[in-house]
Amino acid sequence: MNDFRDADKIWLDLDLATMSNSTASSNLATSFVGYSQGYGVRQGMALAVKNGRISAIAPMVDIDEALLPTANIAGRGGWMTPGLIDCHTHLVFAGSRAQEFEQRLQGVPYEQIARDGGGILSTVRATREASEQQLFDLAAPRLRALMSEGVTTLEIKSGYGLTLKDELKMLRVARQLGEAFPIQVRTTLLGAHALAPEFATNSDAYIDLVCEQMIPAAAEQKLADAVDVFCEGIGFSPAQCGRVFKAAKNYDLAIKGHTEQLSDLKGSQLAASYGALSVDHLEYLDANALQPIVENGTVAVLLPGAFYFLHETKLPPIQALRDAGIPMAVATDFNPGTSPLASLRLMMNMACTLFRLTPEEALAGVTFHAAKALGLSDDSGRLVVGAPADMLLWDIKHPSELAYQIGVPALRQRIYQGETSYV
Amino acid sequence: MNDFRDADKIWLDLDLATMSNSTASSNLATSFVGYSQGYGVRQGMALAVKNGRISAIAPMVDIDEALLPTANIAGRGGWMTPGLIDCHTHLVFAGSRAQEFEQRLQGVPYEQIARDGGGILSTVRATREASEQQLFDLAAPRLRALMSEGVTTLEIKSGYGLTLKDELKMLRVARQLGEAFPIQVRTTLLGAHALAPEFATNSDAYIDLVCEQMIPAAAEQKLADAVDVFCEGIGFSPAQCGRVFKAAKNYDLAIKGHTEQLSDLKGSQLAASYGALSVDHLEYLDANALQPIVENGTVAVLLPGAFYFLHETKLPPIQALRDAGIPMAVATDFNPGTSPLASLRLMMNMACTLFRLTPEEALAGVTFHAAKALGLSDDSGRLVVGAPADMLLWDIKHPSELAYQIGVPALRQRIYQGETSYV
Ligand SMILES: [Zn+2]
Ligand SMILES: [Zn+2]
Repeated sequence: MNDFRDADKIWLDLDLATMSNSTASSNLATSFVGYSQGYGVRQGMALAVKNGRISAIAPMVDIDEALLPTANIAGRGGWMTPGLIDCHTHLVFAGSRAQEFEQRLQGVPYEQIARDGGGILSTVRATREASEQQLFDLAAPRLRALMSEGVTTLEIKSGYGLTLKDELKMLRVARQLGEAFPIQVRTTLLGAHALAPEFATNSDAYIDLVCEQMIPAAAEQKLADAVDVFCEGIGFSPAQCGRVFKAAKNYDLAIKGHTEQLSDLKGSQLAASYGALSVDHLEYLDANALQPIVENGTVAVLLPGAFYFLHETKLPPIQALRDAGIPMAVATDFNPGTSPLASLRLMMNMACTLFRLTPEEALAGVTFHAAKALGLSDDSGRLVVGAPADMLLWDIKHPSELAYQIGVPALRQRIYQGETSYV
Repeated sequence: MNDFRDADKIWLDLDLATMSNSTASSNLATSFVGYSQGYGVRQGMALAVKNGRISAIAPMVDIDEALLPTANIAGRGGWMTPGLIDCHTHLVFAGSRAQEFEQRLQGVPYEQIARDGGGILSTVRATREASEQQLFDLAAPRLRALMSEGVTTLEIKSGYGLTLKDELKMLRVARQLGEAFPIQVRTTLLGAHALAPEFATNSDAYIDLVCEQMIPAAAEQKLADAVDVFCEGIGFSPAQCGRVFKAAKNYDLAIKGHTEQLSDLKGSQLAASYGALSVDHLEYLDANALQPIVENGTVAVLLPGAFYFLHETKLPPIQALRDAGIPMAVATDFNPGTSPLASLRLMMNMACTLFRLTPEEALAGVTFHAAKALGLSDDSGRLVVGAPADMLLWDIKHPSELAYQIGVPALRQRIYQGETSYV
């Protein structure tokens, strides 16, 4: 009771989806155990926040409201979940690919689109030309859209600069977004996203640039929390990605990988062998070669928006991931070329509808599993005492609704580091 | 110029997607004719509104701003399109099907879900129990969600009452929504949506009730603009639907059909032969039997949300519809069982991504083609002089963006009957 009397803010009469002891990403997730089970549900609870962290959780029956300072009561009733975490985005870029989208649907051959200056290099060109302020102004409404859905932590990758200067520029913008808005931003250097046109005949020389200049500079200027690669036939080879991972480790940066999206190059296993936090996409991941991923505790990040937008048919090996106990995160992959869908709630629905995750797995995928994919503390993405007070108060009857219905607002409060904004 | 001086409101420096002379739903739509073609684009224009209708459209070069009353200038710059029209929704209902969604993904067999009271009859039960006020309060946030995206006209079906009293109750709520909010609501009696449990052994007797009581009452009380059926193995037979269509015609009500969603019963051709405004779903429509649809001028309403949510693989015969010159509309089919997706913009994206419509066809599908599916005037859903002033002002660079990027707000003004609300 003292924890509540001394708290900065108190919520009463809550139903909590604590996501603690959740069975998501295990076979238990798909065995029906009754509607009110799962999600680490605790009903009829009170929750207190002090100094930006959850300081107490207790059943309402143990609370004597008469002893609480009414000014500190910040909410009453509703479901509370951890804040949503979007652990894979390319939020900072300039230019639009709507024209390319239209041309493809009109049947214009890809070669002609590329010849006309379309494709990823059109985004690179526009991003290089944009100032930091312009990139910030373009990214801000995208960030606000995600925040209005309940996102409290977001990863942002570079990867449309492809020069030392422009990659660092993108990372600075990402950092600035985290300072300007009530949201935690984690940044990832994705120099090895595409081959810079200046290196068209010598991709190894471009990897030299990534390893010898971009990674050291990003590390020294503390602009990147992690380093990522696109390991693919149209990206970089496993050998080249290995060089990037080695350089990242030398600078104590975390490792992530875009792997097995379009073919099986065993990039996921390679990344895991370097201690990767996450391997992302995974449509072509070999269900019989998961051991390195399991052993390293690497998170499998599912990106159903790109799967959907690219009209893919090959599914990631969801059941094998589940059987192996590999934590599955879900993210928007928001980017102009393959996932122009700025909605993490929609991704939860797509993860269920297209990948057959359960709604509990989808919510785990955007809370504590996403936190793990970003290397955050173990209590991040859960409602437990000591965890960061990044929380959402919903007008729903059950957390399964979060993956089920899209478009009708249900978020009543978004709470970031204990500070409430009314939505 | 006089049209502008006398106008109630004036917008300047507009780029217009008039949707007039659009090539959507013809083979021209898929032949690339240059980025600024299509959509009935007119750039650098001024538009005036008087008495809730578009009263003038003229090039800016013909406008002498000095002569315009500045108080009447309601906007400047940006792209203007017709208001969006969602021509197929089941917006009024009580209860949630999130539990069923979760159970299915947990592998609970459908029979058990039905035995536990799930499925459409759970929505029927909850809707019957709800008062008009409760149904109104549940529908209002769904309606607001669609309005915030730019929807200015919406169709709402009954079909979860399945008794005379409860079907009329649903229609009254739909009418009330249209009176309470700045949006045009068209109502459709869908008594033949599912077999009322009271008639489980005698579906013909239920069709008697629809034809002899529901249709006459809905017509006499002016509660329905149209009558709809679910023509399907799990719905009603073509013979039963024919009886419903005949009764609707007797009462001068327009006709629509849920047809060829799960199998080919030739319900679309049947509906067209009765003069249907639209046939909806159409995944199993026979591409070689479109003549009755063409001859009657019936609109093909595509519902990609239900296709997506049901994880369907069989596509509607889009190219055959295009070849036949059949107008294609796109709608949300918002409903708790098969399309809990309250976003017409998302449906535009899904129509392109899943059904390979062009962005122009998608925009036509939610403007003038949707207007035609509702039997509205020929100028509805277009920006032409004389048309209702239901219009949207967007912060975009090109109308193709409307089908391309989802989640980042782009709507600056929503104008309904000439009245502006700032979004
Ligand atoms: Zn990515
Ligand atoms: Zn329907």
